[in-house]
Amino acid sequence: MNNPLPPNATIGILGGGQLGRMLAVAASRLGLKTHIFEPGEIPPAGQVADKVTTAPYDDHFALTAFAMSVDVITFEFENIPTHALDVLEAIRPVMPNRRALATSQDRVTEKEFLTSLGLQCAPYANIETSEDLTAAVEKIGAPSILKTRRFGYDGKGQSRLKPDTNPTSAWADLGNTPCVLEGFIDFTHEISVIGARSQSGEVVCFDPGENVHRDGILHTTTLPARMSKSQHMDAILATGKILNELDYVGVLGVEFFVTPHSLIINEIAPRVHNSGHWTQNGCVIDQFEQHIRAVAGWPLGDGKRHSNVTMTNLIGDEVNDVATLSKDAAVGLHLYGKADAKAGRKMGHVNKITGPA
Amino acid sequence: MNNPLPPNATIGILGGGQLGRMLAVAASRLGLKTHIFEPGEIPPAGQVADKVTTAPYDDHFALTAFAMSVDVITFEFENIPTHALDVLEAIRPVMPNRRALATSQDRVTEKEFLTSLGLQCAPYANIETSEDLTAAVEKIGAPSILKTRRFGYDGKGQSRLKPDTNPTSAWADLGNTPCVLEGFIDFTHEISVIGARSQSGEVVCFDPGENVHRDGILHTTTLPARMSKSQHMDAILATGKILNELDYVGVLGVEFFVTPHSLIINEIAPRVHNSGHWTQNGCVIDQFEQHIRAVAGWPLGDGKRHSNVTMTNLIGDEVNDVATLSKDAAVGLHLYGKADAKAGRKMGHVNKITGPA
Repeated sequence: MNNPLPPNATIGILGGGQLGRMLAVAASRLGLKTHIFEPGEIPPAGQVADKVTTAPYDDHFALTAFAMSVDVITFEFENIPTHALDVLEAIRPVMPNRRALATSQDRVTEKEFLTSLGLQCAPYANIETSEDLTAAVEKIGAPSILKTRRFGYDGKGQSRLKPDTNPTSAWADLGNTPCVLEGFIDFTHEISVIGARSQSGEVVCFDPGENVHRDGILHTTTLPARMSKSQHMDAILATGKILNELDYVGVLGVEFFVTPHSLIINEIAPRVHNSGHWTQNGCVIDQFEQHIRAVAGWPLGDGKRHSNVTMTNLIGDEVNDVATLSKDAAVGLHLYGKADAKAGRKMGHVNKITGPA
Repeated sequence: MNNPLPPNATIGILGGGQLGRMLAVAASRLGLKTHIFEPGEIPPAGQVADKVTTAPYDDHFALTAFAMSVDVITFEFENIPTHALDVLEAIRPVMPNRRALATSQDRVTEKEFLTSLGLQCAPYANIETSEDLTAAVEKIGAPSILKTRRFGYDGKGQSRLKPDTNPTSAWADLGNTPCVLEGFIDFTHEISVIGARSQSGEVVCFDPGENVHRDGILHTTTLPARMSKSQHMDAILATGKILNELDYVGVLGVEFFVTPHSLIINEIAPRVHNSGHWTQNGCVIDQFEQHIRAVAGWPLGDGKRHSNVTMTNLIGDEVNDVATLSKDAAVGLHLYGKADAKAGRKMGHVNKITGPA
């Protein structure tokens, strides 16, 4: 195991959005400094970080200076350009590692990886040509979901195929980019597990949360999730298997569809995850601190949940009425310091404690 | 009531130590920015604040620019020079108010104030001349404690008078500055209440914590404190009375000596308080957020405690062994990002959850 980073070491974070912001706050609790690398102006994370570099991901000089100024590098999003990683990795360790990024950046690579571990995914077919599309529709049928292999998030880059949908038009609407067609899963609800793995290979998972989406964006996560004890155990074991197989360091989110008889993995995210925000008010050590502990070479916290929680995202102008939001005295309110409450933009979240765990 | 400050407003904080740092983190959770004013180089709070002004308290220009750049001003310590307050108050509201500062800056003023409210303090006598000293020793006797009226903290500016101590030498050791002689209280333990009052006059107190000092510095705070239900209620009521009488806005700490039959106030601090750090892991809304909510004109959180906690300060080189400190997975670790672990310096604290409340 590496030596733990000492207080006053600096964690470099690629991406300055709300996840980077909450990672920076968690690092500050541990006496660690943060340096944010973000192409966009006025990143929310910049308000709580020790340093900010504003530069695009093809600025070789800025990337080099950033990497030289930090002790270890991590990220808040998975779509980091390959050439930027090349520059950064040559100078400082980047965690989680490249294989985790490559695996989760591409839906087909991810499904092949999960299947190779004996974990269950929805039936799927890879689509690169119109022949692939025809064969895929033949194999998977409809209803099904056509998804771009890369760069999808919050329901973007997806199209639902009904029995009467023209698959060729649906694919054209997604730009005829490489896609995957996923079979329809008759699930009752979705849960996710936020797991962490340390540099010494220790694995700790938070309790599964139950997710409800609205307009393709996570709306609520509720603890505890509705599931059997054996499903609970299966979800934790699957997450641990993924973490170990990837030799992962940091926090990873795994989304599962719950059916009456099985758990089917929807997708994995190699980072702190919106469905793990409840940990800020439900656990002594939250997902952000767990991630920082891992990349800093520290032991993990135990992830034990002391309270039942419902996390609700604040989207767009839902954030505007502070007087109302702050009125419920028992609610943990978390706002991201973003200037414009654009429609569909994640502006904050609330964690409502509903009782002891 | 004032309108609540909107997200992206800026809280100005005088003082950039660990209290300012944790206030800045709490503000960030609410989407508020912070600007730290601190004469010392590399303030710990600077790492998590949006802006830092490094200037002395007699720099009229820097104070003015600071005040102009923020929406409201608060502080992490009570010994703010009067002339600096004059400059700041002319530009932006300073909370808590000047009367709270003046009352707590001087031990005699404080005791006169508390006594006027019908609250019990140790017997005391004011000492400005050697005649005062003689009369005080006559009245209070020994054992007793000689304390400077102003600028005392963490046991500094104090001298214990035993029956065989020469009072004249003891006073000379304290520089013959104005002092107060406090009678000895035969108390079993010390507790403190962290209370908050909002701009609309709402008062919320956290549960009392039991404090143990070591070498004059707070060592541990344990929840729940040993005390009867009626003592618990008395402590909360006394704190509320103080907050209301001062027309206070923000968080205030009140230290009490517990005797078998009464509660005797030791002192008050017009700011977030070391004995309130347990709230970070024992409550949904901690003392730092409670303070920010108050000065920002927001409603207060309810201060309910979900867990029993023991907070332990990390002093000097106790902070150095991160590997050991971080090993207890159920402990909330809070480090302040200070570079040098000097003897006697507060470097961090740990909050150990000992069970549900």
